[in-house]
Amino acid sequence: MKTMPDAADVGYDIPALPGMAEADIQTPCLMLDLDALERNIRKMGEYAKAHGMRHRSHGKMHKSVDVQKLQEELGGAVGVCCQKVSEAEAFARGGIRDILVSNQVRDPAKIDRLARLPRHGARVAVCVDDVSNVAELSAAAQKNGTMLDCLVEIDCGAGRCGVDTTEGAVQIARAIDAATGLNFAGVQAYQGNMQHLEHYDDRKAKLDVAIAFTKAVVEALRKVGLAPAIVTGGGTGSYYFESGSGVYNELQCGSYAFMDADYGRIRDEHGQRIDRGEWENALFILTSVMSHAKPDQAVCDAGLKVQSLESGLPQIYGRDDVRYASASDEHGVIEDKHGVLRINEKLKLVPGHCDPTCNLHDWYVGVRQGKVEVVWPVSARGKAY
Amino acid sequence: MKTMPDAADVGYDIPALPGMAEADIQTPCLMLDLDALERNIRKMGEYAKAHGMRHRSHGKMHKSVDVQKLQEELGGAVGVCCQKVSEAEAFARGGIRDILVSNQVRDPAKIDRLARLPRHGARVAVCVDDVSNVAELSAAAQKNGTMLDCLVEIDCGAGRCGVDTTEGAVQIARAIDAATGLNFAGVQAYQGNMQHLEHYDDRKAKLDVAIAFTKAVVEALRKVGLAPAIVTGGGTGSYYFESGSGVYNELQCGSYAFMDADYGRIRDEHGQRIDRGEWENALFILTSVMSHAKPDQAVCDAGLKVQSLESGLPQIYGRDDVRYASASDEHGVIEDKHGVLRINEKLKLVPGHCDPTCNLHDWYVGVRQGKVEVVWPVSARGKAY
Repeated sequence: MKTMPDAADVGYDIPALPGMAEADIQTPCLMLDLDALERNIRKMGEYAKAHGMRHRSHGKMHKSVDVQKLQEELGGAVGVCCQKVSEAEAFARGGIRDILVSNQVRDPAKIDRLARLPRHGARVAVCVDDVSNVAELSAAAQKNGTMLDCLVEIDCGAGRCGVDTTEGAVQIARAIDAATGLNFAGVQAYQGNMQHLEHYDDRKAKLDVAIAFTKAVVEALRKVGLAPAIVTGGGTGSYYFESGSGVYNELQCGSYAFMDADYGRIRDEHGQRIDRGEWENALFILTSVMSHAKPDQAVCDAGLKVQSLESGLPQIYGRDDVRYASASDEHGVIEDKHGVLRINEKLKLVPGHCDPTCNLHDWYVGVRQGKVEVVWPVSARGKAY
Repeated sequence: MKTMPDAADVGYDIPALPGMAEADIQTPCLMLDLDALERNIRKMGEYAKAHGMRHRSHGKMHKSVDVQKLQEELGGAVGVCCQKVSEAEAFARGGIRDILVSNQVRDPAKIDRLARLPRHGARVAVCVDDVSNVAELSAAAQKNGTMLDCLVEIDCGAGRCGVDTTEGAVQIARAIDAATGLNFAGVQAYQGNMQHLEHYDDRKAKLDVAIAFTKAVVEALRKVGLAPAIVTGGGTGSYYFESGSGVYNELQCGSYAFMDADYGRIRDEHGQRIDRGEWENALFILTSVMSHAKPDQAVCDAGLKVQSLESGLPQIYGRDDVRYASASDEHGVIEDKHGVLRINEKLKLVPGHCDPTCNLHDWYVGVRQGKVEVVWPVSARGKAY
């Protein structure tokens, strides 16, 4: 039985060690239910395979080389996508060999770093939504003696980055195709802002629009001899729509692997919450009760600094007798009407939004059958450059 | 003129180097205006001195040994307060010699770590709101051959931790006073949930209640021969109330040093915003425009993963022609009605809430007169254990 070593040894920068009992984990920390995680990963892999889709798992969610490797090994993922050059560097250093930065890269220093990455043995792709970016990328690839795959990013309804005309998409694709050091690889068409709509039909309506525009872009590209090899997009709230579209051939799901409270409450086509059958909660914030000075209110050690609350409060997993009521920087106030909680009692919180929550932590503590099996670094935590 | 070294050298885990021009800083990152920071720190130090108060600056806000040292050197701060044992460890390792954990510590491993800390040469104090915690702390101090200062934490209106009866406070103080290895040091009386009320009179009303209860507790302690040496509390939205109370003798302000958008909008007694005279904005998120595919909307590289939005959106400093409109994980959408922003243009964001925003970053880039002067680590980032 392992226990925590002296503070002098590790400075307590790590919440657990492999071999420890779950009960000895230091809180607050991120805990993964490895059985649930593996089932989620296998399930998405089987879905993609059955529907003839490639799956490029979104590493912006977990920021972990180890989780990504599990997605490639157990779930057949073809590679990773991420949002920042510094994330791509972390995945490349960790041995991931196919990396899409599903975002624009415009800063000259960042473009140079991106163009160096293929030297580490990775295939590297990036998105473009401005024709003037093409020459910048081409110059950097030539300078570094590398090749970058480029995708045209279209705005298929999210209203953020991406061109919103077929002419704009064709113009950029032609520029990429003509540029030395660049390869026109396809179309990035991710509809991000419909993923969390509660009702299936509302999500479907948004995706119908996205698919129609994506089809128009693909058709326009085909007409000028630039049929895209990859048409990529799709998230945990939409992947079945892209899979059935006849135009997409790659998915980019992330949250399915961990689940969170905000995604959990959306409904599948039968009206069921997606965390009640489609996906399992595999990610938890483990927290301890550290004050109970009032009989009907407990205070736990997980506040704003270990979770992102912009998508709502966490849920206390497996408990309907107590409720996480509010958060301050380091504290969570828990409504405990019947005074059932005890000091040092541990609770598992399902975070409101997994992506920015994971980005707050240095470690994942992976647990199976009550025992710590692995402690994985959050490899790209804080990598926002 | 320094520029960023090759990715191979530093892996781009640092956004700037001392000596660089401000224009070469990699975004997104935290930037400190060192002149403004020093003026804020000196001003609070002078206020405390003029009012006969000790100031123990709150390190939970900045989590930085370097900022804390500036507060002690320029602002006369007597030491640091923080909320977690792992933060206290980081400050002790950095050479801070007077540390108050203004929070409960209940986990046995954490109590042991806390009791080891005085061995590093620091005076260490902790708060207690449950009489059964006293024996735990005493046993750990004896085991480690150290002495812990203990403060009774009272709930003077925030409704979170702390006892809310004078009898409860006296019972705990007596237990501390009788325990080997512990020293009864005083009363922790921080009213946290009124700090951000917009109107001065609303804040004053809450503090009147807090001061009345604190006085009653101090009087009850005096009657049993346990007059508290320290009565500590007060934040950026209230320190003038505690200073004029005749019962507090120590302040615990944090946000005054950096300011943020949520604190900035509260009003002083003359109805003026406190970021328009009382305190200066010294902390910014430096961000770059990275997409402008629509004429009236720019997208910048600062989203949810570099700031905490639970207290509202950031403000774009010094600009009234553009507005930060919404955030997703890695992007900020900026309303740019007149299309004035250019790709790679840098903007300074005043974050909504400084404490959890600083906790997302590894570095502070300190700038003076357009040049990077220092790059300080966020020493206790992520230290939540």
